[in-house]
Amino acid sequence: MFKKVLVANRGEIAVRIIRTLKEMGITAVAIYSTADRDSLHVQLADEAVCVGGPRTKDSYLNMKNILAAAVGTGAEAIHPGYGFLSENAEFARLCEACGITFIGPRPATIDLMGNKEHAREQMKKAGVPVIPGSDGYVNRVTDAHLIAKQLGYPVLLKAAAGGGGKGIRRVASPAELQEVFEQAQQEARVSFGDDRMYLEKIMTDVKHIEVQVFRDQAGHVLYFPERDCSVQRNKQKVIEESPCQLVTPAQRQALGELAVKAVTALDYVNTGTLEFLMDRAHHFYFMEMNTRIQVEHTITEMVTGLDLVKMQVQVAAGADLPVCQAQVQMQGHALECRINAEDVRHHFRPSTGVVNDLYLPVGNLGTRIDTALYPGATISPYYDSMIAKVVAYGEDRAAAVAKMRRLLQEMVISGVATNQAFHLAILQNAGWLSGQATTNFLEQTVLPAWKEEKDEAL
Amino acid sequence: MFKKVLVANRGEIAVRIIRTLKEMGITAVAIYSTADRDSLHVQLADEAVCVGGPRTKDSYLNMKNILAAAVGTGAEAIHPGYGFLSENAEFARLCEACGITFIGPRPATIDLMGNKEHAREQMKKAGVPVIPGSDGYVNRVTDAHLIAKQLGYPVLLKAAAGGGGKGIRRVASPAELQEVFEQAQQEARVSFGDDRMYLEKIMTDVKHIEVQVFRDQAGHVLYFPERDCSVQRNKQKVIEESPCQLVTPAQRQALGELAVKAVTALDYVNTGTLEFLMDRAHHFYFMEMNTRIQVEHTITEMVTGLDLVKMQVQVAAGADLPVCQAQVQMQGHALECRINAEDVRHHFRPSTGVVNDLYLPVGNLGTRIDTALYPGATISPYYDSMIAKVVAYGEDRAAAVAKMRRLLQEMVISGVATNQAFHLAILQNAGWLSGQATTNFLEQTVLPAWKEEKDEAL
Repeated sequence: MFKKVLVANRGEIAVRIIRTLKEMGITAVAIYSTADRDSLHVQLADEAVCVGGPRTKDSYLNMKNILAAAVGTGAEAIHPGYGFLSENAEFARLCEACGITFIGPRPATIDLMGNKEHAREQMKKAGVPVIPGSDGYVNRVTDAHLIAKQLGYPVLLKAAAGGGGKGIRRVASPAELQEVFEQAQQEARVSFGDDRMYLEKIMTDVKHIEVQVFRDQAGHVLYFPERDCSVQRNKQKVIEESPCQLVTPAQRQALGELAVKAVTALDYVNTGTLEFLMDRAHHFYFMEMNTRIQVEHTITEMVTGLDLVKMQVQVAAGADLPVCQAQVQMQGHALECRINAEDVRHHFRPSTGVVNDLYLPVGNLGTRIDTALYPGATISPYYDSMIAKVVAYGEDRAAAVAKMRRLLQEMVISGVATNQAFHLAILQNAGWLSGQATTNFLEQTVLPAWKEEKDEAL
Repeated sequence: MFKKVLVANRGEIAVRIIRTLKEMGITAVAIYSTADRDSLHVQLADEAVCVGGPRTKDSYLNMKNILAAAVGTGAEAIHPGYGFLSENAEFARLCEACGITFIGPRPATIDLMGNKEHAREQMKKAGVPVIPGSDGYVNRVTDAHLIAKQLGYPVLLKAAAGGGGKGIRRVASPAELQEVFEQAQQEARVSFGDDRMYLEKIMTDVKHIEVQVFRDQAGHVLYFPERDCSVQRNKQKVIEESPCQLVTPAQRQALGELAVKAVTALDYVNTGTLEFLMDRAHHFYFMEMNTRIQVEHTITEMVTGLDLVKMQVQVAAGADLPVCQAQVQMQGHALECRINAEDVRHHFRPSTGVVNDLYLPVGNLGTRIDTALYPGATISPYYDSMIAKVVAYGEDRAAAVAKMRRLLQEMVISGVATNQAFHLAILQNAGWLSGQATTNFLEQTVLPAWKEEKDEAL
């Protein structure tokens, strides 16, 4: 097992990883930007290295400085967390070149899944149904017109190298397609140095369902119960839960086995998540694969009792998976609410400040709050606004919902605006309570009502 | 289901119960003494009634005022927690007389189990082995000599109505027996108005193993995996864990079924815990039964995923148990460290003050801290010194231990002295790590070393 591991991240996920490393008896090295000197992840780590200025490109994306920190402290491995360099194949290759284990899949796998069209093709080969779309790239607008007509409008025009919403357009008509095709292509060229485009059918009235898998170097493989991440705003997940209310045990198994087949075909190593859309007929369509730990891994940990970051480290160190599929028992129901520092009354714009009064309602069964907050913590404008993950577990969904409501009512975070009240509004919505919410639920149901209410209040 | 329930307790257990009531949609009424005006349980409850002055006899033991609070607020039931009035049959009877449900067993059962000698006899009838002792009361010192000789010294002389260490003596020789018999009898008469005594063999090199059971009004019955509470100081539990490292699955089942048989014979209702001593040959001897929720129910919740206080309320309201025995799955391992406000360097004397800086390490899987602490909370001299229960869950014992160590290292409680460092010392002790520790482990192993170390330090 590794003696020392560097955590190339910040905030709650850095704290979460450092804690597991310490429990494993591994020395944890933190990196930080000059804006994060007093952050909790720096305080909790055994060692900490400043890697640059506040802007992410200077610090948390600064490969050279991060690798220098790893080499300088004698770290044998790097855990990238999520975001930042976690899905950067070049960084994974540089780690390898420096003799440092990148805790994640092989660089070639990251590359393959990073190209969304390659990923689709790979999944199709493995027998996984994908969202209907162009089979291959679409280079000319005339081809795009033909394919879009076949798929039926609206369609999604996407850059193969896409990410972060760049080079992606929702297209409702041939006229619109004509208008935006070259524009999106141009944007992709500028953003990714790669202007290959493809088309996908836009599926509505669907749930976002994802399956996390794990595969060790010896080829043992596992899947976990699905997560329902349909509650989204601007394509960002807001509430996640596991299991999905609508998925039957037989479907759970079938979906899991499909995912296992796919990652086996890829000779995948470590953990990853296959994201699907599920329609009303319970057909699943592959969207994309994340080749890293996800924000919402917490709810899977709650229903299985397994520490997934620990397993990532074990597998990266060459160990076999500690459990087999039959030992992955699912019990109860878990929910996660992402608490963002944002002003829900003003277009959800990010909020910054110093958190003075802080009350995190610990205690009782099935309560988990993953956060880097402490009294006096600073929320700076440089980083993601997600500041806490409130996780509630109950013996069934109703119990988990009741617990989440209680937690959100008790929790106090002062000094910044947060979306706590917005979460409570969702938790009271009959549509959400039914467990039927689809990916456009928030925008169609809660957000308009919320907006009206807030407009009245102002 | 009840609409309103009064919680006749304070501190962490009141907070814990109030939280569950809120999750069940039940209005929670707190009671408090004038010393507890600003306590967390008062802040979290929907309503709160002051029932008297700081001294427990004036407030938390003040039956008249508590019942008046219940009647006045329209509470339909009273949850007594642990300690205070939780095993007071008279209080349970008064509740009944006022038309208020006492959340616990029937008064007659509380009485029966409250008399330690009656409890022994009852258990023997049900086929449960008990600690060898006098069969019935011992009224005269001459009889005591005969029985003690048969049992073999040392023996324990106990008041049948005993509790809180009153009317109980360890007796090592006939001379000592002669000396203390009438003294203890006198103490019992003064303390309990009942001077009936009995004798028990003192068993050494044994573990304290207990089994919690549940029985509903329809007669459905459940047992939970055993708890090992062998780590004790002055007969007070310090660390508890579940399951016990030494108990096999077959023994777990046999012990559970024995406990179920016993409570069925008693026509027991609600939850209770049978305490046993286990010798090296894995023979179990019944000690006593607690007819209430216990401090350490937390670890059972962690390994089963069930909310035991919720089940208490459901059963008291006449509902069936929500799960059957086959649904009680045990997964992983859980530990609880009782954090006391006490000065471990000065004979563990209670410490009081205002808790200003407070950092409770929430986050990550399997972390639970049950406490009524908040920044600014006052620890007064009037009540029990136990101020927090740190609970760690892991997929196995080693993982739970590593997590507990990390939690205790991270946690900050300022303003009062605590036994945090003492717990860390136990967690490093090879004898404890082996899982073999018996009830005299602390006094024989950790305490002397700790004392020496501290003497040196002073």
